[in-house]
Amino acid sequence: MSKANIDTYGQTGVDTHAAASAVGTLAASIRGTFGLRAGRVGAPIRGLGYYANVLDLGNGQGLAVSSDGVGTKLMVAEVMGRYDTIGIDCIAMNVNDLICVGAEPIAMLDYIAVGKINNAVFAEVGKGLLEGCKRCRISIPGGEIAQVGEMLRGTGPTEGFDLVGTAVGVLPMERAIFGQHVRPGDAVVGVASSGIHSNGYTLARRVLAPQVEDYHRFEPAFGRTIGDELLEPTALYVNLAVELFETGPMPHAVCHITGDGYMNLTRVEAEVGFDLDNFPETPAVFRVLAERGRLSAAEMFEVYNMGIGLCIIVPPTDAAAVIACAGRHGFAARELGRVTAEKGLVRIPQHGLSGTKAKGSFRAH
Amino acid sequence: MSKANIDTYGQTGVDTHAAASAVGTLAASIRGTFGLRAGRVGAPIRGLGYYANVLDLGNGQGLAVSSDGVGTKLMVAEVMGRYDTIGIDCIAMNVNDLICVGAEPIAMLDYIAVGKINNAVFAEVGKGLLEGCKRCRISIPGGEIAQVGEMLRGTGPTEGFDLVGTAVGVLPMERAIFGQHVRPGDAVVGVASSGIHSNGYTLARRVLAPQVEDYHRFEPAFGRTIGDELLEPTALYVNLAVELFETGPMPHAVCHITGDGYMNLTRVEAEVGFDLDNFPETPAVFRVLAERGRLSAAEMFEVYNMGIGLCIIVPPTDAAAVIACAGRHGFAARELGRVTAEKGLVRIPQHGLSGTKAKGSFRAH
Repeated sequence: MSKANIDTYGQTGVDTHAAASAVGTLAASIRGTFGLRAGRVGAPIRGLGYYANVLDLGNGQGLAVSSDGVGTKLMVAEVMGRYDTIGIDCIAMNVNDLICVGAEPIAMLDYIAVGKINNAVFAEVGKGLLEGCKRCRISIPGGEIAQVGEMLRGTGPTEGFDLVGTAVGVLPMERAIFGQHVRPGDAVVGVASSGIHSNGYTLARRVLAPQVEDYHRFEPAFGRTIGDELLEPTALYVNLAVELFETGPMPHAVCHITGDGYMNLTRVEAEVGFDLDNFPETPAVFRVLAERGRLSAAEMFEVYNMGIGLCIIVPPTDAAAVIACAGRHGFAARELGRVTAEKGLVRIPQHGLSGTKAKGSFRAH
Repeated sequence: MSKANIDTYGQTGVDTHAAASAVGTLAASIRGTFGLRAGRVGAPIRGLGYYANVLDLGNGQGLAVSSDGVGTKLMVAEVMGRYDTIGIDCIAMNVNDLICVGAEPIAMLDYIAVGKINNAVFAEVGKGLLEGCKRCRISIPGGEIAQVGEMLRGTGPTEGFDLVGTAVGVLPMERAIFGQHVRPGDAVVGVASSGIHSNGYTLARRVLAPQVEDYHRFEPAFGRTIGDELLEPTALYVNLAVELFETGPMPHAVCHITGDGYMNLTRVEAEVGFDLDNFPETPAVFRVLAERGRLSAAEMFEVYNMGIGLCIIVPPTDAAAVIACAGRHGFAARELGRVTAEKGLVRIPQHGLSGTKAKGSFRAH
């Protein structure tokens, strides 16, 4: 069942199993680099696979590092001719990963690849990057622009376009969180997303806009065009998270809900599971996507955030304070469920789903 | 004259003037992010445009950050089916930029974009990344793999390929060098390159291998195939530089000779010029490239390293010590010339060239 759904995504050209295998292959080499900083400043304190890693700078100071791109959401921008918000996505996807290890983001470097230089496009991209930086008070101290038309495909004015970021953040070493303190009984607070964010676009585009002209079609369920809905910028959770880090309650884990949907929760180091029984009503974009694509709930919760972009895990007595803090930063939040003792198991009873870390996927009951 | 040569490169699809203009457009937005860290930890201490920037982490500690990709050298790897050295290039292009501000590199994050996952290719790329890390003792604590076939073009097994790095390094704040201490009379020590490194490949490929089969042709002047010559990995100058930083003589500037050739020297903050009158014999790859492409000396010295991959600027009394240190790390080095008081002017009398920062290009005398 769930296998069939992954095959659905496989048919879009994004093979998630192959990707996991390639990560494994590359990881085998990269793991060999970890010991190279032994006894020197800057050694990574964890392996690969969490949202961000932390380098030990000495003197109790940690440096969090993470890298992420905007992916094929860029193709929506290209079709719509609107490049002023993808910079926000680039910032958000990176800084939302950094807060997952307890870091305060300080800077992001951008990589932009184009076939052809177009100043108007660069000006619009710059607007979004600046807006994203303002929202979370980071700088862009450098970056790289590559003119590599022979390597890119694209129909827009830049004849191909890629936008990727690498972000750094700081934290006291003792604040580094990888979910190692999560305990059964902890509350999972879900913070609202702004839409699809920047994952699952190969599938979403295939389903919602099989023809280029579909992007410009008004969709009553969205109250705007499909293209505008798909371009909605990713929410930035930095200010909320940094307030929690600085004034408490300090989370046991912060989980950015990205490309693996709710399987992301199983990244936490503690040997726990999750019962998520209080999802909000499914936002229109996910409802329409599931209907038109005949996508099962299993696939939807494995690929998309389903209305919750960040999960903050705290002792149950702290849940109300986290929800209040989210509210002060303009986010709807709710207790989404609880941590269980069933290692690696994620249950979503409202939608009849359960899935395990080992399988990396949900199946219907 | 020099304009005509830039037009030559323009015809390859790489428009260096347009690129400069786009950097300027983007920079206008990005500059606005610099003040966002004011009064907080992690503020950048310089603008854009030097090899790397430095963030002030407080307590006298600086974090150097830089980003660079391998560019269309990747297309040579694709044609040759040899992916085991491009990882070295990715590491080298980034860490060689970090040492230019006085930093010791500690880590690099990689971004790999492919159309199709291919484990064999990832294993080979991993080999090169590991080898590069070993040579300069850094880790790869994270990274990103993107499957974005619709955005890429390529004929190899991954159906498109991009490889980009973002590196971080540490330094005591008082060691941060942007060429502000360079003085007329200083010696410019040139350290040997290993070949073209990773810049100017769009032009080099067009000239040396207009047809795909040309890469496999044995070239007597190189003693190997054109493809093998073009895949020669970029030299890594980290160990040499870090020894100088730690035990002296401390350089006044370290300049990585990248895409702008010897115009790179004019990036130093001091108001100086350069007389470079002691170039080594031009290595075969540059000689053949200039001949076959009918490229003028002006264009060659504006795009390529011409046998010198790094310039280290020191008081003249320290030149011998730097040359000896380079020798201990396996690099031929020589006094390439001297710093002058003529602001922004670079003279290469052996090749009849002079050029200014303002024009960004050389002209023949």
